[in-house]
Amino acid sequence: METTLTQKLNIQYPIIQAPMAGGPTIPELIAAVSNAGGLGSLGAGYLTPEQIRDTIREIRKRTDRPFGVNLFVPEQTEVSEDIIEKMNNYLNETRTELGISLNSSTSELKETFNEQVQVLLEENVPVFSFTFGIPSQNIIEEMKQCGIVVIGTATTVEEGIQLEAAGVDAIVAQGSEAGGHRGTFVGEARDALIGTMALLPQLVDHVAVPVIAAGGIMDGRGLVASLALGASAVQMGTAFLVSLESGAHAAYKEKILTSNEDSTVVTYAYSGKAARGIRNDFINKMRLYSGTIPAYPIQNTLTRDIRQAAAKANNPEYMSLWTGQGVRLAKELTASDIVKQTMEQAAALIERLNKNKDN
Amino acid sequence: METTLTQKLNIQYPIIQAPMAGGPTIPELIAAVSNAGGLGSLGAGYLTPEQIRDTIREIRKRTDRPFGVNLFVPEQTEVSEDIIEKMNNYLNETRTELGISLNSSTSELKETFNEQVQVLLEENVPVFSFTFGIPSQNIIEEMKQCGIVVIGTATTVEEGIQLEAAGVDAIVAQGSEAGGHRGTFVGEARDALIGTMALLPQLVDHVAVPVIAAGGIMDGRGLVASLALGASAVQMGTAFLVSLESGAHAAYKEKILTSNEDSTVVTYAYSGKAARGIRNDFINKMRLYSGTIPAYPIQNTLTRDIRQAAAKANNPEYMSLWTGQGVRLAKELTASDIVKQTMEQAAALIERLNKNKDN
Repeated sequence: METTLTQKLNIQYPIIQAPMAGGPTIPELIAAVSNAGGLGSLGAGYLTPEQIRDTIREIRKRTDRPFGVNLFVPEQTEVSEDIIEKMNNYLNETRTELGISLNSSTSELKETFNEQVQVLLEENVPVFSFTFGIPSQNIIEEMKQCGIVVIGTATTVEEGIQLEAAGVDAIVAQGSEAGGHRGTFVGEARDALIGTMALLPQLVDHVAVPVIAAGGIMDGRGLVASLALGASAVQMGTAFLVSLESGAHAAYKEKILTSNEDSTVVTYAYSGKAARGIRNDFINKMRLYSGTIPAYPIQNTLTRDIRQAAAKANNPEYMSLWTGQGVRLAKELTASDIVKQTMEQAAALIERLNKNKDN
Repeated sequence: METTLTQKLNIQYPIIQAPMAGGPTIPELIAAVSNAGGLGSLGAGYLTPEQIRDTIREIRKRTDRPFGVNLFVPEQTEVSEDIIEKMNNYLNETRTELGISLNSSTSELKETFNEQVQVLLEENVPVFSFTFGIPSQNIIEEMKQCGIVVIGTATTVEEGIQLEAAGVDAIVAQGSEAGGHRGTFVGEARDALIGTMALLPQLVDHVAVPVIAAGGIMDGRGLVASLALGASAVQMGTAFLVSLESGAHAAYKEKILTSNEDSTVVTYAYSGKAARGIRNDFINKMRLYSGTIPAYPIQNTLTRDIRQAAAKANNPEYMSLWTGQGVRLAKELTASDIVKQTMEQAAALIERLNKNKDN
């Protein structure tokens, strides 16, 4: 008999907590999801190798169940000093408004992907997921030889086909509803905003590996819909972002809990890479910028002090409020209750669909 | 016992053929869908009252089953002569390329909505659906008093709430995947591109009337997913657009059948109103335009001769190729086979979900 994705991941329920980098995915959340029968995931893209190692050990103190670690595949970025300086001058206006020190030089951007990968191998994490591209063949093969399940991220069918050819064990289909950074690595992110309802069945038809649905899935309805469209599991971000165990900033959670489905926008403002988040003053201010926004990760580095100062001041208008379009369905619950309620609602829903089928 | 939407519409299956204005929804297609147990719909927004009356009679020659007629709710549009003249001069470049006569004056735009409504009442159509706004209270009440089922179109929860307050019998939830014009009437269309997976459950949670899912639904998988998310029926456009009975231009169908999920874009180029279609030369050319695109319906009138000339010349690069994001799933079948296969696939899928539920 064929191994299902949940069997391969050694989890009870087909629910993966999305690896949200930058704060929300603290060990408490990850362990709570895994202990509830789902797969908790660390968004480790911004962490140093040492931080990743420490966090993995903290997770293992809290659970002996499987969990995943997600990394950002680095891209070649060439941005001229002129573009960076012009942006930095523009950002200095915001720094002045926020009362933080001006930044006239950009800090060195150190490439740490290979070192991050090394930590995952050394710590022998159960699941390695990635976004923004495809790691080298060597890395994917080494992970698989260590028994690590490898999961890539696609926003189009073509990306899914390339991921399968690279040997991944499963593919996250990231629909346009999803919060946070777009995983697009073939073509432009603006052309790859395919709704989950359309992306899933088209991707499933073109790859043989299991597909994990992401984007707009908030409860048992989204889980059943995803399974119907051919997914083997779902990845839920926003739902877990507001959970009680989440490490997200209180002002960020509060913004999500008071926003609507049309409150988000896809923006390059914070990081230089397309990402969906709640529209706020910083995004509006960057819309007025006449120059070129430096590509990721440059812009992300440039705006870091602003985001950190805003967080310290509890000012969500200058924080990156990554959120998906299912935002009205976000509820402050424990991660365990989210998993449990999602599964219960899904089971009841399937029963009802089956009962109504012949009417 | 509560009346279901299919009972209210007096149809066998919860499948509505989307009312695609401008060519595809000829009487042969509409009748074929209705005869197959779904609801065929006439996209009558661009038709004169006389054309609507004639088409309704042609439909009735071919079926005694219910069908719908869809109208565009008119908006107040103020566009300066300067903006129109500048656009017209720009369009003249394209006219020259296509070898058609230049257009220096814009034809009178006659307001015919009330006359269109009158025909629907006189012909006592079974279903009246609309988009781009909400008709007056008088019109909605008169329709309902005549026993006509009234269906509005929403792209956000707020629009759905307003439609319910206006007294509609059901609401189409138009997800961002949908092809053709966006129905947005509160705020900007670019902020109301909510994926079907996210829009449906949020809308269903906020209205009591039945919700019809639209956007990315191409087969039984999309139908089951929509029912799981809380829809009472689905509206399918692109799937029927390429059906054998569709009146769509052969070059248009061919383009759909060879396009991918990332081939479409939301553009104002053809009509002055946001609409999703396959990116082609005309859309690319309009991206280079430095002026303001006149609002709907002005721009639609200005580009009509270009679209007609392109159709005559079998040149899809200057035709409006409205298409949804589920495009890879489009198949050349009879409308009856689309309805039948969708229902069979849905039933098998629900059975499989129910069987796997307890594993």
